[in-house]
Amino acid sequence: MMKYNKVDERIISELTDITGPYGVLVDEMKIEQYSHDETSQEEYGHMPEVVVLPETTSQIAQIMKLASRHHIPVTPRGAGSGLSGGAIPLYGGIVLSVEKMNRIIEIDKENLTVTSEAGIITNDLNEHLKQEGLFFAGYPMSLETCFLGGNIAENAGGGRAVKYGVTGRYVLALEVVTPQGEILQLGGKVTKDVSGYDLKQLYIGSEGTLGIITRATIKLLGLPEATSDLLVSFDTAQEAIDAVSAIMRAGITPTSIEFMDQRSIIMSCDYLNESLPYQDVGAMLLIEIDGSDEAIVERELIRVGQLCEQNKATEVYIAEDFSTQQRIWAVRRNIAEAVKVYSPVQSLEDIVVPIGSIAKVLPELDRLSETYHVKIVCYGHAGDGNLHATIIKEPDDSMEYWHEVEPKVLRELYSFIVHCLGGKISGEHGIGLKRKEYLKEVMDKSEYTASIALKRAFDPDMILNPGKIFYDEGQ
Amino acid sequence: MMKYNKVDERIISELTDITGPYGVLVDEMKIEQYSHDETSQEEYGHMPEVVVLPETTSQIAQIMKLASRHHIPVTPRGAGSGLSGGAIPLYGGIVLSVEKMNRIIEIDKENLTVTSEAGIITNDLNEHLKQEGLFFAGYPMSLETCFLGGNIAENAGGGRAVKYGVTGRYVLALEVVTPQGEILQLGGKVTKDVSGYDLKQLYIGSEGTLGIITRATIKLLGLPEATSDLLVSFDTAQEAIDAVSAIMRAGITPTSIEFMDQRSIIMSCDYLNESLPYQDVGAMLLIEIDGSDEAIVERELIRVGQLCEQNKATEVYIAEDFSTQQRIWAVRRNIAEAVKVYSPVQSLEDIVVPIGSIAKVLPELDRLSETYHVKIVCYGHAGDGNLHATIIKEPDDSMEYWHEVEPKVLRELYSFIVHCLGGKISGEHGIGLKRKEYLKEVMDKSEYTASIALKRAFDPDMILNPGKIFYDEGQ
Repeated sequence: MMKYNKVDERIISELTDITGPYGVLVDEMKIEQYSHDETSQEEYGHMPEVVVLPETTSQIAQIMKLASRHHIPVTPRGAGSGLSGGAIPLYGGIVLSVEKMNRIIEIDKENLTVTSEAGIITNDLNEHLKQEGLFFAGYPMSLETCFLGGNIAENAGGGRAVKYGVTGRYVLALEVVTPQGEILQLGGKVTKDVSGYDLKQLYIGSEGTLGIITRATIKLLGLPEATSDLLVSFDTAQEAIDAVSAIMRAGITPTSIEFMDQRSIIMSCDYLNESLPYQDVGAMLLIEIDGSDEAIVERELIRVGQLCEQNKATEVYIAEDFSTQQRIWAVRRNIAEAVKVYSPVQSLEDIVVPIGSIAKVLPELDRLSETYHVKIVCYGHAGDGNLHATIIKEPDDSMEYWHEVEPKVLRELYSFIVHCLGGKISGEHGIGLKRKEYLKEVMDKSEYTASIALKRAFDPDMILNPGKIFYDEGQ
Repeated sequence: MMKYNKVDERIISELTDITGPYGVLVDEMKIEQYSHDETSQEEYGHMPEVVVLPETTSQIAQIMKLASRHHIPVTPRGAGSGLSGGAIPLYGGIVLSVEKMNRIIEIDKENLTVTSEAGIITNDLNEHLKQEGLFFAGYPMSLETCFLGGNIAENAGGGRAVKYGVTGRYVLALEVVTPQGEILQLGGKVTKDVSGYDLKQLYIGSEGTLGIITRATIKLLGLPEATSDLLVSFDTAQEAIDAVSAIMRAGITPTSIEFMDQRSIIMSCDYLNESLPYQDVGAMLLIEIDGSDEAIVERELIRVGQLCEQNKATEVYIAEDFSTQQRIWAVRRNIAEAVKVYSPVQSLEDIVVPIGSIAKVLPELDRLSETYHVKIVCYGHAGDGNLHATIIKEPDDSMEYWHEVEPKVLRELYSFIVHCLGGKISGEHGIGLKRKEYLKEVMDKSEYTASIALKRAFDPDMILNPGKIFYDEGQ
């Protein structure tokens, strides 16, 4: 078990010396919001002893040196929009929020890059870039709240990964503060680089357990000239998923292929007081195509529409104007929130499988739903093989029953995904607190051991975001 | 300084037990070819004590366990086509060649992946894939000899990286043997994955210093329907390089933009007994465009041609048929070999800069050439900002003079690239033996220290490819 020192008056005073009095929060009312993320507060929440709001990288380095000296755990935090408990201070100590570090340092139009601090909201970044005709291709569903730093720490995926890949592909350079308080400048504005190990890659997706991302240089793309969406309905969820395989096999690369089952559509429409065309269908695909040429986008859109019709689509609805596109995407983006309102007792999953195996996922979800008497809502980034199956307690069942069956459902689901389909238990939400016990069960022992060796090499005192990803690292 | 045990009769006998008698070479005549790569043999060559040719991953694991037990250094080797001395057994010991492990395990058409052993020749792999209408987008200039495993260990770039990126982008899964003889299965056929650290990325480009890559699963693409090349001539090298910036700024993404200065064209044509149209020009760009639609390729080709003409091109020659394309690319691919024949006393460099700064490189090369009385031939992947400046001893100068000025030229060049232009000293050839001293000088101390901590975590006894990338790791 981890053993750390407590944050006492002297440490508060030292922190105040570093950040100034407005940079240190100790009032319980004020720090409560830093005790949880978007996972269940009851299940995973934990109060920090103090929250610090540094304004510079140098302040973060000083905080880490202090924490290292006094053996206090530090949990870095972005917007708190995470879905696996990565930003929760499991052992109390210091929560280090980068919320005040939200400046854009430079937009380099010649090299098509932006350098920004970690605390900028993803959407704000793109609003700025839009004025230059550019965009950052990361598109997490929480883009209206999440921070760039969090996107990188989680290697966020999102709605456009079918075409554009995940966040990591666009990270050219990182500034990182190590657990010992050293500042690393990694990478650069170069498109290829083999000058030593690619340490930058290590921090991408490491959930703030190896270092604190303070600044990033991101590769930008020119805004596509044309974007069009298809909303395609099917009688059954399985038919919709089968159509996804057909589209991917045809060699077309849409920007997005999002899947929504009947329950997720209804819940999100209810939540938003929105109505979609044909919303009482079995399932829908939301398919986006973008490109530099309107005629090509149009042609691909028609081809995808035809493929859907050949694969049992009942209706194909084209959303070409921006406001309709926005409405449809709002329905998709708000599913997680809507399901949470419908039932806070749930487990939002993030399984990912080889695209060729995606058709095999739904029958297993049905089986688990029946066997264990749980509701399962399913939606997500079908074009990536990444489905957000959400397991929900049935209203009539007791909490006791739920606590008994939830781990069983997850164990069987994860084992099926990993061992039968060659998939992974998380495609984009991460392991954090929520999945660490399960990761240990499904991950090959050699890989698990090598991962812990890596953590120990970078953070020998285990003070940075302890208790995440890996189960009981010891000390 | 490193201190290792010698390979004695007992160890030879244990190795023979593992691989069988045909898998162990000790005869000096036979092992001599394993003492060098494509760097200068005189300068960097070193004889191994024994060469092993395992046929399975399990044999490699046993060899590493043995080496670990007896504290013998092991240098993994692909085709020996490297350009930085990465495969040279600096401390003798065992050279472990994967040349016998060249089987394709699986072509998965549903998921568009190929799984192959590390010892397959890159070109052979693509010849197999072509029959399925697929290809691996890596395209190192040595593709006719280099191995897939070496491509990954070096994170090879090559001629198509402008559009397709470098090797690492296509590596979905790796099988790796650790220095301790553990077998790791990393990644999978998934397009996104945040289930723990991305260890796979660590091995990509680590030059065989962290683990031995034995097998890889590679993401494939559909073969482009249309490919066309432009050969564009300019009066001066600087005008050609300026045109590269203009093309990249225009938002077009050619497959390749290769630069060849006058000397490199003449040397390669002489070497191949080939003649190019307009070969007595100041410099040429070789620009390739591919795509799924002949009309689009045609349109982009014309647009690029016009851009070149607006940027001082003197002639634009279109090579649409396959055999002409092959001839032109052969000239480009054979420059390194031709320059070596012209003068074996040389230093083939691999600098990479942000594309917006590429125009600033040539004046510095001219300055260095004048200041230090060396010839500099320059060619390479201009569209990536990656230039193979080759520094050559002038025939009249003594070897003594060369040994005095070469490090001075490199020091000034590297310092300019890194500190003035924000570039890197190697874009694709790696650090190996050749650049390790210089890497230490230009790399930030914190990054250097973190990199060595990583090496020590993975290879605490420093037995795997010791003496590479990092200078004097101690022990």
